[in-house]
Amino acid sequence: MVTRLEVTDVSSAVACCAPLVREPIGQTDAEQLAVTLKALADPARLRLLSIVASSEDQEACVCDLIDPIGLSQPTVSHHLKVLTEAGFLTRSKRGTWAYYRLVPDALQQVSGLLVSA
Amino acid sequence: MVTRLEVTDVSSAVACCAPLVREPIGQTDAEQLAVTLKALADPARLRLLSIVASSEDQEACVCDLIDPIGLSQPTVSHHLKVLTEAGFLTRSKRGTWAYYRLVPDALQQVSGLLVSA
Repeated sequence: MVTRLEVTDVSSAVACCAPLVREPIGQTDAEQLAVTLKALADPARLRLLSIVASSEDQEACVCDLIDPIGLSQPTVSHHLKVLTEAGFLTRSKRGTWAYYRLVPDALQQVSGLLVSA
Repeated sequence: MVTRLEVTDVSSAVACCAPLVREPIGQTDAEQLAVTLKALADPARLRLLSIVASSEDQEACVCDLIDPIGLSQPTVSHHLKVLTEAGFLTRSKRGTWAYYRLVPDALQQVSGLLVSA
């Protein structure tokens, strides 16, 4: 099932606020962080992100992402788009294929919001 | 709007797997982590968790959680239940009121899955 998500990017979600445990997060900041977490909160997206993140140079060709996930190419592309729009991946086209690369520090920034620095 | 979520607890989500960037996460582990992240990925739940987490002793009375959030008592109770079932909060009843306390290390465990240790 493909769900539609409103997306934001990690850096705007993180620029916003102190870690959750330090002071109460405001409504606007909570909305932004929730959108970022929703982009992560899907098994297929976690698997895709994890394959890219653990690949050499933290980059992978979309051609190598479809088989391991066991979903259709359009569904995989949708999930990659959500992760890209949320600021976790960047996309570049080289020849026939698109390549996805982990955005340095994107996961660290989200992680840093959940816990005290 | 109140949504229903399938919930799991943080410790079972985290016992599961190496950080996302170290090796590709498997389907079962990804499903568990997604459920945990979904429990967090809601503005009202992030605000509630943040109020509890930043309170003295990381504990708060439900009576002090309703006004700041600006939602009805049943909706607030629903969100607190989701956070409790997901393993982020524990609930205890003292006198008339229920008190919610942050589970130590629950946020750190999720955070630790997103990044390299």
